[in-house]
Amino acid sequence: EDLDFDGVGASHVFVILGASGDLAKKKIYPTLWWLYKDGLLPAKTTFIGYARSKLTMEDIKKKTLPYMKHLEIKHSLLILKVKEGDEQKVEAFFKANEYVAGSYDQTKDFSNLNKQIEQKGDSNRLFYLALPPSVFETVTLNLKAVCMAKGDKWTRVIIEKPFGKDLESSTKLSSHLESLFKEEQIYRIDHYLGKEMVQNLMVLRFANKIFSPIWNRENIASVVISFKEPFGTQGRGGYFDEFGIIRDVMQNHLLQILTLVAMEKPASTNAEDIRNEKVKVLKCIQPIEMENVVLGQYVGNPEGEGEEKEGYLDDPTVPKVKLIVLLSTIDIVILISQCRYVHVCSFSNISVFLALNERKAEVRIQFKDVAGDIFPDGAVKRNELVIRVQPNEAVYLKMMTKSPGMSFNSEETELDLSYGSRYKGMKLPDAYERLILDVFYGSQIHFVRSDELYEAWRIFTPLLHKIESEKPKPIPYVYGRTGMDKNKE
Amino acid sequence: EDLDFDGVGASHVFVILGASGDLAKKKIYPTLWWLYKDGLLPAKTTFIGYARSKLTMEDIKKKTLPYMKHLEIKHSLLILKVKEGDEQKVEAFFKANEYVAGSYDQTKDFSNLNKQIEQKGDSNRLFYLALPPSVFETVTLNLKAVCMAKGDKWTRVIIEKPFGKDLESSTKLSSHLESLFKEEQIYRIDHYLGKEMVQNLMVLRFANKIFSPIWNRENIASVVISFKEPFGTQGRGGYFDEFGIIRDVMQNHLLQILTLVAMEKPASTNAEDIRNEKVKVLKCIQPIEMENVVLGQYVGNPEGEGEEKEGYLDDPTVPKVKLIVLLSTIDIVILISQCRYVHVCSFSNISVFLALNERKAEVRIQFKDVAGDIFPDGAVKRNELVIRVQPNEAVYLKMMTKSPGMSFNSEETELDLSYGSRYKGMKLPDAYERLILDVFYGSQIHFVRSDELYEAWRIFTPLLHKIESEKPKPIPYVYGRTGMDKNKE
Amino acid sequence: EDLDFDGVGASHVFVILGASGDLAKKKIYPTLWWLYKDGLLPAKTTFIGYARSKLTMEDIKKKTLPYMKHLEIKHSLLILKVKEGDEQKVEAFFKANEYVAGSYDQTKDFSNLNKQIEQKGDSNRLFYLALPPSVFETVTLNLKAVCMAKGDKWTRVIIEKPFGKDLESSTKLSSHLESLFKEEQIYRIDHYLGKEMVQNLMVLRFANKIFSPIWNRENIASVVISFKEPFGTQGRGGYFDEFGIIRDVMQNHLLQILTLVAMEKPASTNAEDIRNEKVKVLKCIQPIEMENVVLGQYVGNPEGEGEEKEGYLDDPTVPKVKLIVLLSTIDIVILISQCRYVHVCSFSNISVFLALNERKAEVRIQFKDVAGDIFPDGAVKRNELVIRVQPNEAVYLKMMTKSPGMSFNSEETELDLSYGSRYKGMKLPDAYERLILDVFYGSQIHFVRSDELYEAWRIFTPLLHKIESEKPKPIPYVYGRTGMDKNKE
Amino acid sequence: EDLDFDGVGASHVFVILGASGDLAKKKIYPTLWWLYKDGLLPAKTTFIGYARSKLTMEDIKKKTLPYMKHLEIKHSLLILKVKEGDEQKVEAFFKANEYVAGSYDQTKDFSNLNKQIEQKGDSNRLFYLALPPSVFETVTLNLKAVCMAKGDKWTRVIIEKPFGKDLESSTKLSSHLESLFKEEQIYRIDHYLGKEMVQNLMVLRFANKIFSPIWNRENIASVVISFKEPFGTQGRGGYFDEFGIIRDVMQNHLLQILTLVAMEKPASTNAEDIRNEKVKVLKCIQPIEMENVVLGQYVGNPEGEGEEKEGYLDDPTVPKVKLIVLLSTIDIVILISQCRYVHVCSFSNISVFLALNERKAEVRIQFKDVAGDIFPDGAVKRNELVIRVQPNEAVYLKMMTKSPGMSFNSEETELDLSYGSRYKGMKLPDAYERLILDVFYGSQIHFVRSDELYEAWRIFTPLLHKIESEKPKPIPYVYGRTGMDKNKE
Repeated sequence: EDLDFDGVGASHVFVILGASGDLAKKKIYPTLWWLYKDGLLPAKTTFIGYARSKLTMEDIKKKTLPYMKHLEIKHSLLILKVKEGDEQKVEAFFKANEYVAGSYDQTKDFSNLNKQIEQKGDSNRLFYLALPPSVFETVTLNLKAVCMAKGDKWTRVIIEKPFGKDLESSTKLSSHLESLFKEEQIYRIDHYLGKEMVQNLMVLRFANKIFSPIWNRENIASVVISFKEPFGTQGRGGYFDEFGIIRDVMQNHLLQILTLVAMEKPASTNAEDIRNEKVKVLKCIQPIEMENVVLGQYVGNPEGEGEEKEGYLDDPTVPKVKLIVLLSTIDIVILISQCRYVHVCSFSNISVFLALNERKAEVRIQFKDVAGDIFPDGAVKRNELVIRVQPNEAVYLKMMTKSPGMSFNSEETELDLSYGSRYKGMKLPDAYERLILDVFYGSQIHFVRSDELYEAWRIFTPLLHKIESEKPKPIPYVYGRTGMDKNKE
Repeated sequence: EDLDFDGVGASHVFVILGASGDLAKKKIYPTLWWLYKDGLLPAKTTFIGYARSKLTMEDIKKKTLPYMKHLEIKHSLLILKVKEGDEQKVEAFFKANEYVAGSYDQTKDFSNLNKQIEQKGDSNRLFYLALPPSVFETVTLNLKAVCMAKGDKWTRVIIEKPFGKDLESSTKLSSHLESLFKEEQIYRIDHYLGKEMVQNLMVLRFANKIFSPIWNRENIASVVISFKEPFGTQGRGGYFDEFGIIRDVMQNHLLQILTLVAMEKPASTNAEDIRNEKVKVLKCIQPIEMENVVLGQYVGNPEGEGEEKEGYLDDPTVPKVKLIVLLSTIDIVILISQCRYVHVCSFSNISVFLALNERKAEVRIQFKDVAGDIFPDGAVKRNELVIRVQPNEAVYLKMMTKSPGMSFNSEETELDLSYGSRYKGMKLPDAYERLILDVFYGSQIHFVRSDELYEAWRIFTPLLHKIESEKPKPIPYVYGRTGMDKNKE
Repeated sequence: EDLDFDGVGASHVFVILGASGDLAKKKIYPTLWWLYKDGLLPAKTTFIGYARSKLTMEDIKKKTLPYMKHLEIKHSLLILKVKEGDEQKVEAFFKANEYVAGSYDQTKDFSNLNKQIEQKGDSNRLFYLALPPSVFETVTLNLKAVCMAKGDKWTRVIIEKPFGKDLESSTKLSSHLESLFKEEQIYRIDHYLGKEMVQNLMVLRFANKIFSPIWNRENIASVVISFKEPFGTQGRGGYFDEFGIIRDVMQNHLLQILTLVAMEKPASTNAEDIRNEKVKVLKCIQPIEMENVVLGQYVGNPEGEGEEKEGYLDDPTVPKVKLIVLLSTIDIVILISQCRYVHVCSFSNISVFLALNERKAEVRIQFKDVAGDIFPDGAVKRNELVIRVQPNEAVYLKMMTKSPGMSFNSEETELDLSYGSRYKGMKLPDAYERLILDVFYGSQIHFVRSDELYEAWRIFTPLLHKIESEKPKPIPYVYGRTGMDKNKE
Repeated sequence: EDLDFDGVGASHVFVILGASGDLAKKKIYPTLWWLYKDGLLPAKTTFIGYARSKLTMEDIKKKTLPYMKHLEIKHSLLILKVKEGDEQKVEAFFKANEYVAGSYDQTKDFSNLNKQIEQKGDSNRLFYLALPPSVFETVTLNLKAVCMAKGDKWTRVIIEKPFGKDLESSTKLSSHLESLFKEEQIYRIDHYLGKEMVQNLMVLRFANKIFSPIWNRENIASVVISFKEPFGTQGRGGYFDEFGIIRDVMQNHLLQILTLVAMEKPASTNAEDIRNEKVKVLKCIQPIEMENVVLGQYVGNPEGEGEEKEGYLDDPTVPKVKLIVLLSTIDIVILISQCRYVHVCSFSNISVFLALNERKAEVRIQFKDVAGDIFPDGAVKRNELVIRVQPNEAVYLKMMTKSPGMSFNSEETELDLSYGSRYKGMKLPDAYERLILDVFYGSQIHFVRSDELYEAWRIFTPLLHKIESEKPKPIPYVYGRTGMDKNKE
C-alpha cells in the first residue's frame, strides 16, 4: 500500500501534550521507546514532552523508565530492569527527547513550543493530546494557530477518548475539530482497533473463501461480543461516575468490533473504503431500546478475599449521589433490523461485566442449527467460531465430529488455532505500538472517523439519557461469579 | 435405529469359510478376538472354522495367536505376547472356537457343517467367505442349499473383494448372489468404509451447519483423494498381475470415499437412504476417459536402500508377459458433469501411488479462490479442508490469518484437530472390528450394495479394457520420490 | 430417451377389464379413440373390452360414442357429433375393437380372453383394470395365471385408485401385486400426473437457472397447494362415505404435486431417478397431526340456486350413519421437518374445498419477505410464483415494481405467462391421453411406485384413523362462499 | 423521507440561464410548463429567463410554445395545439415568467438579475445553467458573488453535461464548483437517471426477494447494456467531433445504469447512501483497456433511402481533420475484477450503436447455464431478465417451460410485463420532469455526485486518450443493419 511514510530523509517531531500525566507515563513514553528500540520509527525523530509542570527530561525519565522496564520482562516476571544490551539504546532514546513547559491556554506558550519544533528543521508534526477534555478546545485552537507544519510537511493530531459524553457533546467536539483540521489530520484512538485479533478480523473474513458463504444472516444466528474483568471499580469510582461502563467500553471498543464483524467487504483495504463500510453497518443499527438491555451491579462476596468482599457501592471512590447511573455490568442486544441482503446477522449481543471470575474479551459467531438434522434429537450442537481478543489470543471453531471409536455418535470438538502454541515465543505488539506507528505512516484504517463517532453516539445516547433520567434498578450479582441471572433473554 | 441385535438371549454362530488361509489368520481371527475380549459380541457366540485342510483347533490357535498378540502391543512395540491379564480370556475365546474340515464343492460336507451349527441350537448364522473367487459359486450354492438358518433366525453372508474384474464378471457374480440371497443378507466388505475418518465424513458434513453452504460446486474447486504407499509390489506381483491397482484400490476404496464426500444429505441415517445417495452420485459420474488418466511405474532408485533399489519390473513375482497392465501408480480425474444444483464439485482427482516417500491416505477439499480479492496479488492462498484417513487421523482446515505482529500481511495457518493429540491414549478400533460388529448388528451402512457395485464397475470398466488392449506406456518415476512428473494437469 | 416402444412392427393388444362400466365409457374408450385418431398408437393395436355383461361391440359403441363426440366439440359447444372428416376413422377405430364377456373369477373365462388375444399373434399386452376393488384380487391372479405375454413380449397392468384405504389395506394390495408382477409391469394411474402444468414442474424447476438458488427453505416461506370445486357431493355421497376427500384428492393428487415441488434434482429424467427423489421427499414428511388439520363441511345456502340450497348432510346419497367421516373440506399443514440442506420448504399447506365459489387447482410458491427492507413499512409485498393447474393453465410471478409515473412508490405487478393467450388455439391433451400413451411407451415417470404409495399412506393413515375414531366436529361453511373461517392458522 | 419542500408558503424563483438557447426552448420551458400545469410546483414560483439577447417574454413564448404543444398531442399526433381547456393555464404560466437580459461575465448584470429575484421576496433559488462550458466559470463565480439566497432560504444549481472532457478537465471543473458551492447545492443532470425503468431498477432489485439470491456473480453470467439508434450523426457532426460517442452516452448514461445494476443494497434509500454504493461499484471497475473495446463506423447504404445513403464520413458537419476520433459505434467490455463477495457480475458489456435498424436502450441480465443439466444437450437456453428502457418500457424474463402438449420437450417462453399493455393509457412522465421536480424537493438520488463523476472519468479517460493518440481504424458497418461483425468477442 502506498503510505506517505517518508521516513528516510524527513525529520519528524512527536509532541506529547500532557507529558507529565499518567497516560504519557504509562503508555505513550513506553510505546515510543519500544518503537524506537525496534527501529520502526523514522531515523530523524524527536520527541517533545509538553505540560504545565516545570520538569526536566531527567524527571520524565525517572517517571517513565519503570514502565519501559516492566514490559520487557513480562514473559519471565522476575526482575525489573531494561533488557540486557538495551541500556545504550535507552540512553539514545532519552537523548532524542526534549521537554517544554507551558500552559494549555496561552498562545505564547505554544509559540514557544513551535520554536522548539522548528529547531528540528522542516518537520512533519505529530501531536498526541494526552489531556483532559477540559483543555481540548484551547489546546487545539492554539495548535492550529501557531504549531502547524509548513510547506509540504504534514501535521497529525492524535486524540484520546472521551470524544464527548453523548451525541450532542460529541457533535460539538467534532464540529470544533472539523473547523480546525481536515479529517485526514485527525487520528481518534480506539486502542481496541490496535489489537491483534481485532486487526485479524479483516483477514479472517475476507481472505478465506470458506467464510463468505456462511457469514450472513441465513447462517449466523447471532454474534456475541463480551468483555469480562475479574476486578471491580478498583478506586476508579470517580471515573465511572463521570462516564459509566457504556461510555467506557461499549460505545467504542465493542461497537467497533461489531462493525468489523458485520460490515460488508470493502472496495479495497484503503482506510476510507473500510470506514465507509463500518459507517454503513452503524447506519443500519437502531438506537438501543431499554427493553433490550440488562443492567447489573456487583455486590461484595462475603466469602471472597480482599477486594472481592466489597461491592460496587462499597467503593469509597464511588460518589454517593447518583449511584444508579454507575453500572458495572451491562448486557445489550443490538438490533440490526435494517439489513442488507447479505447482512451478517439480524442482531448481536454485546456485554460488559466487571468483577467476574475471569478476564476475557471475545467474539463468538454462533451459527444456526443444522436444518433438517438427520441425527438424533439433541445430538448435534451448533457451530461457533470464537475469536478470543484477550488474553491468550486464539481462533477456534467449535464443531461436531464422530465420537472416535466404535460408536457412531457425534460429539463436539474444536478446530483450533491458539496463538500461544502455534506462534510460540512470538511477542505480539501492544495495541498502542501499532496505532502510533500507523500515525507515522498516515494509515487511518484503525482510527475512528467523525461519522463513525456520530453514529455510535446516535445508537447509545437515547439509552444513556434514559438510564440517567429513569435510574432503573440494576440486578445485583456477587463478585467473582461467572455471570448474573438475567431477567430477560 | 432399531437394529436386530438380539444378543442377550439368542445363539450366534460365526463361520469362517477358508479358516486356514491368510486372511483368516491375520485379520478375521484376531478381529473376532478383539471383539470377544471387549465383550462386544453376543454372549452365546460360537466360531466355527471351515476349510479343506484337516486341522485341529490347536493348529488354528498356533497360527493365529501371534497376530492376536501383535496388535495388543502395537503402542509399545517391545514384546510379543498377549496383554497381561488377558491370558484367561484367550483360553475362553479358543474354547468358543471349533473347526470343521470339508471340501468347497461337496454338499455332504456342508451338511456336516450344518450339523455342527445345529448343535448350538436355533442360531443366527454369519458366514464369512474368506475364499478365492474360484470357489465362491459352489460354496454359496451349498450354503443356500443346506446351511441356512431356520424359523425366525437370520443368515448373513460376508464377502470380500474381488467382486469381479469388470462390469461383466461383477454383474454375473451379483446375479448369482441375488438368485440365492436377499440384498439384506449380503454384506460386501470394503474395509475402507470401516475407517474412523471415513465414517466421520457423514458427521463432519451433515452435523456442521458451517459446511452446508460451502460444500458445493460454487465454492469447492476440487476434491483430491490420494493414497500413497512407501513400498512397492513387495512380492505381490502375482496379485497385481491379476488385478492391478485400479481394481485393488480405486474402484472400491477411493471411489467409496468420493461418494461419501460428494453425496447429498440422505433422508435419514438408515443404510438404504445413505446407499441411495451414494448410488445417485455414482450415476452422475461418466465412465473415465483415457485422456483424464496418468499412468506411472516406479523404477529402482540406485541410491536407495534395500527394496528401493528395485523397480516394478525388477520384482521377480511380476509376470513378464503382460507387464504393461501392471501399473503401480495412477492418477485419475473423475468428471461429475451430470451435476445437480447442490452438487459438491464438477470433478474430483483420485490417485494411488506405490513406492513413494510416505504412507498416506487423505481427502483434500480444495476451495475456490476468494472472488474479488482485496489483498495484494498472491497474498491469499486458497482454503483447504484436509481429512487424513491414515496414518495419524486428523482433520484440519488450511486458512489465512493476519501475520501475527506489526505487519498487516496475511499468511496461511491451520485450524487443527489431530486425533493423536486431542484424543490422547485412545485406541481407534480397526476397520474390521467395526465392520464385523456391524454384521452382527445388521447395519449395512458401511457395506456395498449391488447397485453401487454395478455403477462403480460401469465407471472403471471402459478404462480397464482400454489399458489392457492399448497398453499405454506408463511414466517412470524413481522409488522413494515425492511424486512423478505428470504430462498433464 | 430410450423407451421400448416397438410400435412399428409389433402387435399390441389393449384390454379394458370392466369395459361396460362408467370409467371405460367416459374416459378409457374416448381416450383410446383420441390417441388412435391422432395416429399416436402402434399401427397394429387391437382393443378388447372385457366385462361380465353379454354385450356386442355395437352396444359398446352406442354407449361410448357420445363421449367421444363430446370432447371433439368442447371448444364450440354447439353440436354433438364426431368432427367432420373423422367419421371414417371412427369406423376404423371400432373395427379394431372387440368384446369378450366373462366373469372376474373363473379362470376359464380368462383362458377364453387369452385365446382372443392370441389370435392377434405374439403381442405386447396392456390390461387396464377399470374395476371395483372387490374383484382386483381374483382378476390379477387370473391374469397372471393365464393371460401373460409370451417370449420377448411384455405385459403391463394399469390400475386405478383406490389403492387401498389406509396403510394396511394398501400394503396388502401392494404385496399381492408384487407377488404377481414386477414393479416395471405395474402402472398405477394418478391422473393428476398427466396434467400439463404438473408435468411442467420438472422443466420449470430444473431447466431455469434462476430458480435453483431460490427454490429452498432459505427463500421459500411456504408452498400452498389448493383444490377448489364449485359443486358439492352431487349424489356421490356413497363414494364419499366410503372414501372421503382425503383419500379422494389429498393423499394422491395433491401429495404427488407436493413431491414434485419439493423434490431435489434427480440424477436424470429416468423414471426411477425421479421416483427415487419423490420417495425421498415423502420419507421426510411426518405423519399428519390432528392439530395441523382444519375440517369443514358445507351447509346449504338458502339464497343459493338449485343444488346450492343443499348442504352436505342434505344429500340423500350420503349415508346417515357415520356422517362425521364424510368431510367435504379439509385444510392441512404438512410438516417437512426432516429437511435436507437444500430443502424446498419446512412446511406446505394443502387444502381441498368442495362447494366453493370457483373451480381451481393451483400451486403457490410463497417467498419470504425481503430481509432488511429499505422501503417503507408495508410497501413491499412478498413474491409469489403461481402455477395454475386448472382451469386456464398459467404460470405467473407476483412481484414488486416501481409505481409507474412520478411517484417513487412501489406496487405489486405480475410477470405473466397465461397459456390461453400465449399458446392461442393450442389444445392441451387430456391427462389420460398422456398417461395411456406412456404405458405403450413404457415410461413410468408419471405413475406411482409401490414405495411412493406406501409413504403416502404412512403420512395420512394416522389422521384418517383418528378422524374415524374421534369424529371431530367440522366447521360449517355456506355453499358458494369463497372459503371458511378457520379456527387456527 | 423528509424532503425540504416547503412549497406551501415559501416563494421560489427558478432561473434559466441561457434562456434563449435550444435546450431551454425544447426542454426546460416545456418541462416547467408540464410541471406547472399538473400543479406539481410550489404555488409561489416565478420563472426568470436570463440570456444575452435582448428579448421580451413574448419572444420566449413564441419560441417555446410549439414545443409545449407538441407533447400534449403526442398520443393522437393530429394537430399541433395546446390541449383544449389548458389555454388559460398557459396564459397563467407565462404570467409567472419573466426575462432579464444580461452578459455572462459582468457582475453588475448578475446584480441586476439578483434585484429581479429579490422582488419576489425571500425566495429559494434554483439556477439552471443551460449554457456552453465556455461561460460556466464566470457564471458560477457571479452567481456565488451576488445571487445566493439569504437567511434560511436555499440555493440550488442545476448543471448539464458536459462535465469536462476527461479526468483532468472534469476534476478542474469539480474543484471550481466545490470552491463555490456545497455538494448538496449542486445538481448534475444525467437525464437517464430520470427514466422510468432506470428508476425502477432500485425497486425491482431490492423489493423482490426472488432476486436477491440470484443477483450475483455465482448466477449472473453477464450484464449487457445496449443503446441503439436508427439514425446517424444527423448534422451533429460538430458535436461528435468535440465529444464523441463515449463522452455522449457511455461515460454517463450507460455507466450510470451499470452502477444501478451492480451496486449492493444501500443502507437506506437516502441519496447519500445510494450514491455511496454507486461509487463503490465504480471504484471496483478498472480503467478500460483497448483490447476490450470494439470500434465501428457506419458507411452509407447504397440501397437505403435518404440519410441512410450517407456514411459517417459523408456528413458535411463532421470535420475532416481528426476523423478517427469520431466513432459512431462502440462496444466495450467492462471488467469489474475487484469484486466483493456478493458482486453482481465479473464483467458487463456496454455498447452504443448509431445508424442501426432500430431504436432501443435496454439492460439484459444474462444468467448462467443450469449446472448439471438433466435435459438433452442444447435443449435448455439460459435465462435472461430484460429491462427495456426505451421505447416501450417493459420487464420480461426469458425462461424455459415444457412445450405444451404431448411432448416432454422444453422450449423458451417469457414471463412478461409490458408497460404498454399492463398500464394502458398511462402517460409516463418525461425524465426532465422528474428531475426538475426533484431539485425543488431537494432529492439528489438521481443526480451525479462529484466522486461518481471522478470515478467515471477515471475509468474512461485512458481509453479516450489512447483512441485520440493512436487513432485505431474502426470497423465499417452499413447504415441500417442489425449490427456489425466484431473482430473479437
